[in-house]
Amino acid sequence: MQRQVINIGLLGLGTVGSGVLQLITNNRSEITAKTGVKTQVTKALVRSLDKKRPILNRYKNTGLELTTDPAEILNDPDIDIVVEVMGSVKTAKDYISQALKNGKYVVTANKDLMAQHGYELFTLAKKHQRSIYYEASVGGGIPLIRPLKNCLAANKIQSLMGIINGTTNYILTQMTLYEKDFATALAEAQAKGFAEQEPSSDLEGKDAAYKLAILASLAFNSRIDVNQVYTESINEISVRDIMYAKQLGFVIKLLAIGEETADGLSLRVHPTLVPTNHPLASVQNEFNALFLEGDAVGEVMFYGRGAGSMPTASAVVADIIEVVRSINHEVRNGSIETTYTAKPIIPMKKQTSKFYLRLKAADQSGVFGSVATEFGNEDVSLDLIIQNQRELGVAEIVLVTHDVCEEKFYRALENIKKLTSIRNISNIIRVLERS
Amino acid sequence: MQRQVINIGLLGLGTVGSGVLQLITNNRSEITAKTGVKTQVTKALVRSLDKKRPILNRYKNTGLELTTDPAEILNDPDIDIVVEVMGSVKTAKDYISQALKNGKYVVTANKDLMAQHGYELFTLAKKHQRSIYYEASVGGGIPLIRPLKNCLAANKIQSLMGIINGTTNYILTQMTLYEKDFATALAEAQAKGFAEQEPSSDLEGKDAAYKLAILASLAFNSRIDVNQVYTESINEISVRDIMYAKQLGFVIKLLAIGEETADGLSLRVHPTLVPTNHPLASVQNEFNALFLEGDAVGEVMFYGRGAGSMPTASAVVADIIEVVRSINHEVRNGSIETTYTAKPIIPMKKQTSKFYLRLKAADQSGVFGSVATEFGNEDVSLDLIIQNQRELGVAEIVLVTHDVCEEKFYRALENIKKLTSIRNISNIIRVLERS
Repeated sequence: MQRQVINIGLLGLGTVGSGVLQLITNNRSEITAKTGVKTQVTKALVRSLDKKRPILNRYKNTGLELTTDPAEILNDPDIDIVVEVMGSVKTAKDYISQALKNGKYVVTANKDLMAQHGYELFTLAKKHQRSIYYEASVGGGIPLIRPLKNCLAANKIQSLMGIINGTTNYILTQMTLYEKDFATALAEAQAKGFAEQEPSSDLEGKDAAYKLAILASLAFNSRIDVNQVYTESINEISVRDIMYAKQLGFVIKLLAIGEETADGLSLRVHPTLVPTNHPLASVQNEFNALFLEGDAVGEVMFYGRGAGSMPTASAVVADIIEVVRSINHEVRNGSIETTYTAKPIIPMKKQTSKFYLRLKAADQSGVFGSVATEFGNEDVSLDLIIQNQRELGVAEIVLVTHDVCEEKFYRALENIKKLTSIRNISNIIRVLERS
Repeated sequence: MQRQVINIGLLGLGTVGSGVLQLITNNRSEITAKTGVKTQVTKALVRSLDKKRPILNRYKNTGLELTTDPAEILNDPDIDIVVEVMGSVKTAKDYISQALKNGKYVVTANKDLMAQHGYELFTLAKKHQRSIYYEASVGGGIPLIRPLKNCLAANKIQSLMGIINGTTNYILTQMTLYEKDFATALAEAQAKGFAEQEPSSDLEGKDAAYKLAILASLAFNSRIDVNQVYTESINEISVRDIMYAKQLGFVIKLLAIGEETADGLSLRVHPTLVPTNHPLASVQNEFNALFLEGDAVGEVMFYGRGAGSMPTASAVVADIIEVVRSINHEVRNGSIETTYTAKPIIPMKKQTSKFYLRLKAADQSGVFGSVATEFGNEDVSLDLIIQNQRELGVAEIVLVTHDVCEEKFYRALENIKKLTSIRNISNIIRVLERS
């Protein structure tokens, strides 16, 4: 039976929830034309009914009801789609589970929830012949989930590399373009709203790891435990490293990387030297991008704003439109994810990387030779070398290795640290191979 | 009723057809996992049964039948999906129409057909409750059609700009990176298979105009007559222009541009100076990209290989997977396009552009003033000026205007040409505003 009206209940009316309400209202006629159905938000769950919400002035006579009781939405038989934009993990999971049990379709923007409990929720949705959509959970408005599930469905995805955290990309871009130090760039990002007051989840790569877990699960058809994603912070990146990288033809980015190999999955988030002619190198400031390689499509990249009220609402409402279309065509899909098993994850020490190493050593003959010898003992060969900045008897040496086994690199490094001529190891950053 | 096997008939077994066959075979287990159905090619239409086809050695005992009679496929009741990868317009249209009338789903990679007769075919498909999919018709493997129809469906698309012709982008990239002249770059592109022996459709922007018509139709929900798309060739671009552009902070690209304004649609393909920090500026060689602005999502870009056997097959098979899913869920969609009316197209002379102008003039005082005066008389104001290369009494002048009405710019130019001090107008190229 063709439905004429589809009703939505919003869980949360914060930044994203307000954006969703605004977008559905602004583009109502286009959305109706595209779906053949009138789509409306009838109820929204809020923490307080007393808070002033200027956005609601537009909805005075539309029948939109605010409530502080989730059951008013979850148990409302007239509500077809529950849209979860409240954040948090445990409460959101409870509400979404209840919604699915009550036969509602679910759209969520909740990255933490989907990375940690996606599989349970997909299974529950399948049991109740409903679907859960989560395009907005990664990359804001950039289409990423749907391209992986549909557009690139014919491919075996070999690797993905993403700049999927706007905070760190903003900071690194400012450090690169204007030689600002880390603390200054962070403070500015906070002032502009690109970094939170407590930014550690972003800076340490945790936020990117959650997003990588969601994307890699779809790309590699595997259940992924987010705790198995290796992460490294950007806190130690200095302008000095950025300048050396530039001299060598690279920019430094925080990359989330996933690869499938014969031994299993490689999943990691770490600062990386990216060749300046790589498409990811020109992704600046708060922008995000995902670069994929598929066996048929080759290289493909998706670029845009990875956060913000309206970009995120764009993804949420795209999901709503898909649900509306599917309700009227009695589709029951979205259960691909339930077919995944968990593929093994390769530990970092068994992985192959190319390294940038900056160190300080006594400015005397034979120092470089002894460093090279230690690397040679572990089959680590060198690609690029810069030696300069002699000051007060101390020389700064920058090396870039060829691809090497991480375990061997770190073993060589332990021995290098013991050399009497070595003053300190200033930094170690992984390098993306030039194509 | 859940189908266990879906049968495909291929119309054409050339570059793309072979790629489709190969991809369906290589990734069979993944595709079956994603759809829950066995998908197989049972028949392929070819011109000659005698031709040697090494790819077919793998299909000896799979029941794949070759035929030179289209009716064998179009009228076969066991075939569910007809995949048209033969090219041509009239014959392909006849075959596809017959397939739809016989209740088959259609997937096509035929850009010329969809740009010219898309609307008729969508209407026919709707009448027979079937769908026609055409992701591969634009941008090879890069997801463009589906993102416009689904992922960005919540947005009003304000503008789109694309590098959607690999031949011209390859030539311009080679001219830019290595200062090769146009003829050399073209010859190399031909040698490498990035340009056809008869390349005029690519060089003159016709190929890009077809693709733009398809994309703009979806972006702006409008029927579009491809003959109303303005086109300009890259043949007149010289290394000299490219070097001046570089000095001014731009690279020269052939852009396909679509915008919706209050007066109607602006649709054009022409060489354009693109600011070097714009994401489109770093799209090199045979790569393609589409840059969009939506009212909610903001700026978003899709990047990848716009042609080739396997990238195109990636898009065709993604469409096949969607059809397979929809058959098993009894979806009847793909008819959004039939709801479009035709929006008015704004003629070029009424449009606003920013221009780069290179001219030669007598090296004497007052020349520049007289040029500026002519521009001033038509309200054309100037943004950037380079004056150099004085040789034998002749000065070369390069100007970049602010945004101006095209009609006024060309009127001023006519008067400038009449000035006795002007030797010649070397080139005129439009400029993309810095963001």
